Amino acid sequence: MGLHLPSFSDVERAAERLRGHVVRTPLLSSSQLNALAGRRVVLKPECLQHTGSFKFRGAFNRLCQLTAKERAAGVVAWSSGNHAQGVALAAQLLNIPARIVMPADAPQIKTRNTLALGAEVVAYDRYSEDREVIARDLVMRNGGTIVPSYDDADIIAGQGTVGLELLQDTEPPEALLVCCSGGGLVAGCALAVEGLNASTAVFSVEPAEFNDHERSLRNGIRERVEPGSTSICDALLAPTPGELTFAINQQILAGGLSVSDEEVLLAMSFAFEHLKLVLEPGGAVALAALLSGKVPEHYRSVGIILSGGNVDPAVFAAAIKAVSNSQSNP
Amino acid sequence: MGLHLPSFSDVERAAERLRGHVVRTPLLSSSQLNALAGRRVVLKPECLQHTGSFKFRGAFNRLCQLTAKERAAGVVAWSSGNHAQGVALAAQLLNIPARIVMPADAPQIKTRNTLALGAEVVAYDRYSEDREVIARDLVMRNGGTIVPSYDDADIIAGQGTVGLELLQDTEPPEALLVCCSGGGLVAGCALAVEGLNASTAVFSVEPAEFNDHERSLRNGIRERVEPGSTSICDALLAPTPGELTFAINQQILAGGLSVSDEEVLLAMSFAFEHLKLVLEPGGAVALAALLSGKVPEHYRSVGIILSGGNVDPAVFAAAIKAVSNSQSNP
Repeated sequence: MGLHLPSFSDVERAAERLRGHVVRTPLLSSSQLNALAGRRVVLKPECLQHTGSFKFRGAFNRLCQLTAKERAAGVVAWSSGNHAQGVALAAQLLNIPARIVMPADAPQIKTRNTLALGAEVVAYDRYSEDREVIARDLVMRNGGTIVPSYDDADIIAGQGTVGLELLQDTEPPEALLVCCSGGGLVAGCALAVEGLNASTAVFSVEPAEFNDHERSLRNGIRERVEPGSTSICDALLAPTPGELTFAINQQILAGGLSVSDEEVLLAMSFAFEHLKLVLEPGGAVALAALLSGKVPEHYRSVGIILSGGNVDPAVFAAAIKAVSNSQSNP
Repeated sequence: MGLHLPSFSDVERAAERLRGHVVRTPLLSSSQLNALAGRRVVLKPECLQHTGSFKFRGAFNRLCQLTAKERAAGVVAWSSGNHAQGVALAAQLLNIPARIVMPADAPQIKTRNTLALGAEVVAYDRYSEDREVIARDLVMRNGGTIVPSYDDADIIAGQGTVGLELLQDTEPPEALLVCCSGGGLVAGCALAVEGLNASTAVFSVEPAEFNDHERSLRNGIRERVEPGSTSICDALLAPTPGELTFAINQQILAGGLSVSDEEVLLAMSFAFEHLKLVLEPGGAVALAALLSGKVPEHYRSVGIILSGGNVDPAVFAAAIKAVSNSQSNP
């Protein structure tokens, strides 16, 4: 049985459905960043999207296509927090009941906002329980439609509108850096690049110990992260590429990059000081890859997706103060 | 002798001069903010402007009109930090030497960025020295043109492009809230409102102990702040309205509002959590006025200028953590 892979026209149709519902996030630039990177850099700040991350795009694209009967039965999702908020807001706008399975140690801001959007939150222990089992059990008992966070044609197409907007609003950059967990955002953006015949080289960017895409792209098979791996990027902890997303990414991506926690903290601090944007760790990995010199010099222009900004105050405060202290006491 | 007051056509001409040089900052909205305020709110984030505040607009509008001879002799300005950076960047772009008199206790980020933009920084003690005397002395000895931070027709017209863009990009809000120190930004925005025949009521917003505009507008004369007044809003400490700015503001403004330091901190924290924007204290006063219930309910739509985001990490960290702690331990 073949996989149902989304195409560029699915991204275009998603953009139609999302019109008037999503924030068309601006493109930003920074002379400091251009100088530091030695090339033209364009930034797509999806932290300014509804719910503080790009995730609302895919969720709305999926939920708005449910039938009246499906809507009445509600939706179920699992998420470390950004997909949770995206699904919760889409469900609220479309008047659909939503149940979200979230880790008990998710950032408080993510759990609080999901609840504030009217969703029911079912907490689980990341270390001893399986969230998919919990979600499927909820559906078995109460009905409802599962909304996957990345391995779904409508989700991928919805996230792809980020790349589509970027390419509509500026000359195609020679390289495009996209954060990557299950691979939905980067796959959608890759479809947009391919569909518009842009010569942009698309790269996934992951936390160093969660570089399953980087290794999978190199080796041609879906690799898994080592058990016990850690990262401050709570949004980017998927253990292996999605089936659909990898089928796309394997065909289109130029390669995978990865960054250390320290490089992520530096990028968050740079965004605070020079861009005036709040980025969560997972939202800063693409910028971190550029700032840490991981993008080959021959790419003379670079697009960066700043994917989210949902971070607890204590974590953000520690990030910007740590860098500040190391600047004053080198 | 009459004052040379700028007009709406000066704002329009400034917009022409600035085209391609300034960031046309986007308009943002937030469903949480709309819900909290019970009305439509549009936000103009000038923290995303070059140098992290609106000040580059006025500076560039002034400096680009200097003659070749004036440019060669350089410019001199005094500033607590945002005008400093605006003048420094405009001077750098136009290849003009710049000397800026800045308080020794200005936020480090402001001094560091001004130096990084190639300006010469002359430090002075805010409590014992007069910055205007120092600046005029520099000009006497070395020549050069003084670039005032607000009481100048070109500066006012340049800052007015913030209001012009806002009104071009959305239906005129019923009220517009603008931060206020010497009154240049609010005067320029008021000229834009008047020139476009918008029925928008324009309000200045100041720190509680620096509410000289609020009192001056009420009493019809230029009032001064009490000696020894304090505020965390380092950018909004001008002691009295400007002569030109007050002549405009007295005619057009609907009134003045003011906010406490605590209300400013709450607004900074709200912007961190829900808008993903970094605001400095002075950049958050207009939002603070709305959030603290100071805007009469009958204004059903409100425009807010978020004027700057240059804040030291320790100050920002303290702001977002203080609010976070008070939320967890009410």
